[in-house]
Amino acid sequence: MRIAFIGLGNMGLPMAVNLLAAGHQVLGYDLAEAALEAFAAAGGQRAASARQALEGAQAVITMLPASRHVEALYLGDEGVLAAVPAGTLLVDCSTIAPAVARKVAAAAAESGHFMLDAPVSGGTGGAKAGTLTFMVGGETATFERGRPLLEAMGKNIFHAGDCGSGQTVKVCNNMLLGILMAGTSEALRLGIANGMDPNVLSDVMLRSSGRNWTLEVYNPCPGVMAQAPASHGYADGFGVDLMLKDLGLAQESALATGTPTPLGALARNLYDLHSKAGHGRLDFSSIYNLLASQA
Amino acid sequence: MRIAFIGLGNMGLPMAVNLLAAGHQVLGYDLAEAALEAFAAAGGQRAASARQALEGAQAVITMLPASRHVEALYLGDEGVLAAVPAGTLLVDCSTIAPAVARKVAAAAAESGHFMLDAPVSGGTGGAKAGTLTFMVGGETATFERGRPLLEAMGKNIFHAGDCGSGQTVKVCNNMLLGILMAGTSEALRLGIANGMDPNVLSDVMLRSSGRNWTLEVYNPCPGVMAQAPASHGYADGFGVDLMLKDLGLAQESALATGTPTPLGALARNLYDLHSKAGHGRLDFSSIYNLLASQA
Amino acid sequence: MRIAFIGLGNMGLPMAVNLLAAGHQVLGYDLAEAALEAFAAAGGQRAASARQALEGAQAVITMLPASRHVEALYLGDEGVLAAVPAGTLLVDCSTIAPAVARKVAAAAAESGHFMLDAPVSGGTGGAKAGTLTFMVGGETATFERGRPLLEAMGKNIFHAGDCGSGQTVKVCNNMLLGILMAGTSEALRLGIANGMDPNVLSDVMLRSSGRNWTLEVYNPCPGVMAQAPASHGYADGFGVDLMLKDLGLAQESALATGTPTPLGALARNLYDLHSKAGHGRLDFSSIYNLLASQA
Amino acid sequence: MRIAFIGLGNMGLPMAVNLLAAGHQVLGYDLAEAALEAFAAAGGQRAASARQALEGAQAVITMLPASRHVEALYLGDEGVLAAVPAGTLLVDCSTIAPAVARKVAAAAAESGHFMLDAPVSGGTGGAKAGTLTFMVGGETATFERGRPLLEAMGKNIFHAGDCGSGQTVKVCNNMLLGILMAGTSEALRLGIANGMDPNVLSDVMLRSSGRNWTLEVYNPCPGVMAQAPASHGYADGFGVDLMLKDLGLAQESALATGTPTPLGALARNLYDLHSKAGHGRLDFSSIYNLLASQA
Repeated sequence: MRIAFIGLGNMGLPMAVNLLAAGHQVLGYDLAEAALEAFAAAGGQRAASARQALEGAQAVITMLPASRHVEALYLGDEGVLAAVPAGTLLVDCSTIAPAVARKVAAAAAESGHFMLDAPVSGGTGGAKAGTLTFMVGGETATFERGRPLLEAMGKNIFHAGDCGSGQTVKVCNNMLLGILMAGTSEALRLGIANGMDPNVLSDVMLRSSGRNWTLEVYNPCPGVMAQAPASHGYADGFGVDLMLKDLGLAQESALATGTPTPLGALARNLYDLHSKAGHGRLDFSSIYNLLASQA
Repeated sequence: MRIAFIGLGNMGLPMAVNLLAAGHQVLGYDLAEAALEAFAAAGGQRAASARQALEGAQAVITMLPASRHVEALYLGDEGVLAAVPAGTLLVDCSTIAPAVARKVAAAAAESGHFMLDAPVSGGTGGAKAGTLTFMVGGETATFERGRPLLEAMGKNIFHAGDCGSGQTVKVCNNMLLGILMAGTSEALRLGIANGMDPNVLSDVMLRSSGRNWTLEVYNPCPGVMAQAPASHGYADGFGVDLMLKDLGLAQESALATGTPTPLGALARNLYDLHSKAGHGRLDFSSIYNLLASQA
Repeated sequence: MRIAFIGLGNMGLPMAVNLLAAGHQVLGYDLAEAALEAFAAAGGQRAASARQALEGAQAVITMLPASRHVEALYLGDEGVLAAVPAGTLLVDCSTIAPAVARKVAAAAAESGHFMLDAPVSGGTGGAKAGTLTFMVGGETATFERGRPLLEAMGKNIFHAGDCGSGQTVKVCNNMLLGILMAGTSEALRLGIANGMDPNVLSDVMLRSSGRNWTLEVYNPCPGVMAQAPASHGYADGFGVDLMLKDLGLAQESALATGTPTPLGALARNLYDLHSKAGHGRLDFSSIYNLLASQA
Repeated sequence: MRIAFIGLGNMGLPMAVNLLAAGHQVLGYDLAEAALEAFAAAGGQRAASARQALEGAQAVITMLPASRHVEALYLGDEGVLAAVPAGTLLVDCSTIAPAVARKVAAAAAESGHFMLDAPVSGGTGGAKAGTLTFMVGGETATFERGRPLLEAMGKNIFHAGDCGSGQTVKVCNNMLLGILMAGTSEALRLGIANGMDPNVLSDVMLRSSGRNWTLEVYNPCPGVMAQAPASHGYADGFGVDLMLKDLGLAQESALATGTPTPLGALARNLYDLHSKAGHGRLDFSSIYNLLASQA
């Protein structure tokens, strides 16, 4: 299939490369020259502009930083909807506000395009390995049409519901994840301050009602899990500033829909304080350090 | 074994009955006449006083409401430590402050007794079925000595570490549980407000990084899990006021040890507001109702 | 002066009437027929449309519910900027997002209009009595030009700075007010739970470092101040839902500017819980009731 | 009058010196040799032990770090109640838990002593200048008996009610102060992030419903008030760790009395994070730095 891939950053580049590896013809575009060069070096075809990448594309995949970029790229006068013929498959993999995803998808439907919002989780590691999780919103038929492309880039492909549902699920899941990580950090800190061995405490909570994903695979206390970022100086992993972005999307959506989210709001502020203190690029499990026990 | 069991309330009574069923001789005592009668009806031997129950006991098990009762019963002039000979096994199954558990255990050690703090989880259902989880603090040899008794009342018996560790683990776990339940409720509410089906949202989060015990077995949204309290008017289960007690113990311990627990503190206040609004006896997953979306 | 006044609601109507009383010619418009009738009954001239009200106006004053209404009325194809000649004075008294106020003002400047954002405080009582406080953003010369109109409707006229500053000051002030009211309520509740007389406690805090506007004129505890809403069933005053709107604007702005506001975020959620529990129309000092002490 | 003064720290020493200056005979005691020497150098009479200081005292004044010290000094076997004759006036100026103050006062009443709890505010500056504020709990007759001593050390002497009321008022007031300072910091940060001049914003809020003590005399933004700690590197003033102690007492009391204090609990955690980040000795208005805007 001839695919236009726009947005070749840390995530987009390896995703596009996996599409190449699956035998697709991929025209890539990015505002950064270095990204274009890297894509060409990996065997991709670089376009001189978004417009050029879109020419003749049977499917368009986008991976952009924020809501405003997606809105501009799709809805602008020279945007995707204006550039590609009705019937084309459009897949936005960016993480953006659910309300914006719904707005873009509604415009796409009106112009006869078939659109999916398909944000990912799994980080740059998952993008390279082709093991990303996709949370997908859109009509069932469109979802089935897009599935083979997504399977070339990921492992778990969830159909969440109508347009915007992919973004909603991602935002809800990541708000909850931010809470789980901070809450688990607090529980571990409190136990340690009472003399507990964090390994034992983690083990018992993992087998009790405190069980959660962070205790399973991503323990925030250094030394408990050899492979977790906490045991490697909180390097790599999922950055504080990325978590902060998702927690901000959650709050935007909570304000827009009138949903009380007291823990979600507090969690966002805690990651924000942590980022402002200079730790935005550390893995998000370093929130454990903000919640320090008495020296 | 001849066992003194003091505190025959909703939890203590079925626990004592399970000890009877395991073939032990159990002398029970409670301040409430009705509790004594129920114990006798179940085949137990009722004592006229705590003192009388303690006479000749090889092991003492206590299940009391709060720190002050445990302190009074064990350390008082006519208390357990004064009444039973050195060497006796003492097992306190109450949920109390870790600091008080350490204090009582230290006094017990000084007088030559062998003490375990062994708070439980699993509710009255688990107490009746003999499937409670015990989180146990105390020396390894004492733990091994107490294990057969605990196995007569429960299924999962965790050795958490030194004296007080049982309480610490329980307090940490339940603080985390309170956060998980409120955080999961917020995520579900936010998704529903964005048009999501709570079944789909729960399913995707369960298979993603938002996974936690509440999504596995105790979903707070009515209708998602047929057997969860949420689908039965939040009746039975683990009450708001019991969660509130545990969250209060966590905060006491956080203040005493100088541990920041911003989410834990906020969670305690949310359950408190929910209780003050008249819902203290509902299952704690009814915190979902406090966090209502726009009408 | 010939003035177009658009938005004749609970606040706008008495403001427009005060302009009439000051001798101005006022053409009023509102979407609600009842508002137009009330304005005519008060001696005002009703227009058949916004467009008609704007014809020949030397100044335009608007009092609308939210950001989107202001954006639509000013920037729409048939909007204020298109309808009135360059050089006309435009005063928006609505409470809206600072970012939207800046956007509308920038468009107004580009088309040669002179714009002020001038949100008010003082409630419907102040609107009727002509004692409102105006917080005004805009160029100094424009501010001086608008001042006589504002003085016809209010008592305290603050020039806060450039365009948007009026909204910023209002949002910051009201976020702080929401925090003061909830914080003062907590302090009073804690004192009462310790056996204090709320009159004495209020008096001492008022003369100490806890002093704040709510203790001075708006005590949330029933019976402390005879004239405060708390002593009259929390009727009238400044409604919970209005406070909630302002706290929401503060959070939107905090998210947009990357400003941590943990107390502001929590306060918003508390008023939201209070509103969802059915108390949105009570005075905002009724947050005291949400924070109930033990029964 | 012959006065025993126990606790000659940063606050106690200048207070005792002011009693000397008022013509009283003061026997001072402290565990620290340096404190005793400083007291002697200031003309005081040093005692070799608390016991010796108490001999023949007509009044006892204590200024100790925390609840446990007060409890030990008054109620111990060799404590104040055992050492001085019934009828003696006892004034505890320490800041401690209201519940402990009530307990000690009850014991004092039982042994026929006359006790006041009289915590202070005003810092070391006020202690030296004799301008402290005293918040006093105890019977009216006892209060009148103690008033001349308090007036020798302070300027504002408030009678708050029964025993323990002094502590309650102080704890409530300081919890509120901690909230005011953090809330005002958030409002200023949000305004600055929107382009406001903090001087103008402070001025308008001071004249509006955001008015509070911190805007009047203790603005947390550097440069707004020349004499405030914020304009002098947050040196001197009322330390973060002292505020943290008072916020902790408030939380202990909230837990003990079942009072929801969500903002108070969050404020405590914020000051705790600030202290753990190494800023415990700065003035408490430095919480403004924790709440940093985007760099």
